[in-house]
Amino acid sequence: MSDCVFCKIAAGEIPGKKLYEDDDILAFHDINPVAPVHVLLIPKKHIASGAADLTEEHSAVIGHIFAVAANIARELDIADGFQIITNNGEKVGQTVAHLHFHLLGGGDFRLKLG
Amino acid sequence: MSDCVFCKIAAGEIPGKKLYEDDDILAFHDINPVAPVHVLLIPKKHIASGAADLTEEHSAVIGHIFAVAANIARELDIADGFQIITNNGEKVGQTVAHLHFHLLGGGDFRLKLG
Repeated sequence: MSDCVFCKIAAGEIPGKKLYEDDDILAFHDINPVAPVHVLLIPKKHIASGAADLTEEHSAVIGHIFAVAANIARELDIADGFQIITNNGEKVGQTVAHLHFHLLGGGDFRLKLG
Repeated sequence: MSDCVFCKIAAGEIPGKKLYEDDDILAFHDINPVAPVHVLLIPKKHIASGAADLTEEHSAVIGHIFAVAANIARELDIADGFQIITNNGEKVGQTVAHLHFHLLGGGDFRLKLG
């Protein structure tokens, strides 16, 4: 776990542009944004691979992440148009093996589904 | 609410290719899939716009949706590579104003972030 970059940001061992933090979760700006607003939300507890590891016991922290994401969307003035995505597995582009959610929006940005 | 297509699917008033159902949530195949696996997960309770309306009181149902999504990913053999996305607002492509999560995967499918 000591090699996990998100664990290190959560522990304050490496810097992050933090937007929100409490005992359980952390939100910070992505260092390589793909959208005008690109925020990452993570549980502080290391959930190893990603969404595939989620069970009912994670409900509280996942629900909390979404409530905080909605607040951040309002604060950053993108509440009328944003996307939240989580990638599970390298084949779909997951680069850090610690569960994280991308909050994306602003301007004309849009990840197109179809 | 009576005009909401997802409420009608949840109520059994119009058909849906259901994968999972309980008192609180429903999972069904998207009728216009953009990936080999394209499943929609919704709370049965109408959450009007989307993720922007989420608060801590929705934690249980959101957490439950993610736990069920992980189970479906395993059942459909995409647990090594899938994405879960929710769109909030027409400007990012939301077409049904009832909170829903897209579970996407299979083959080489990938929504690219960067």
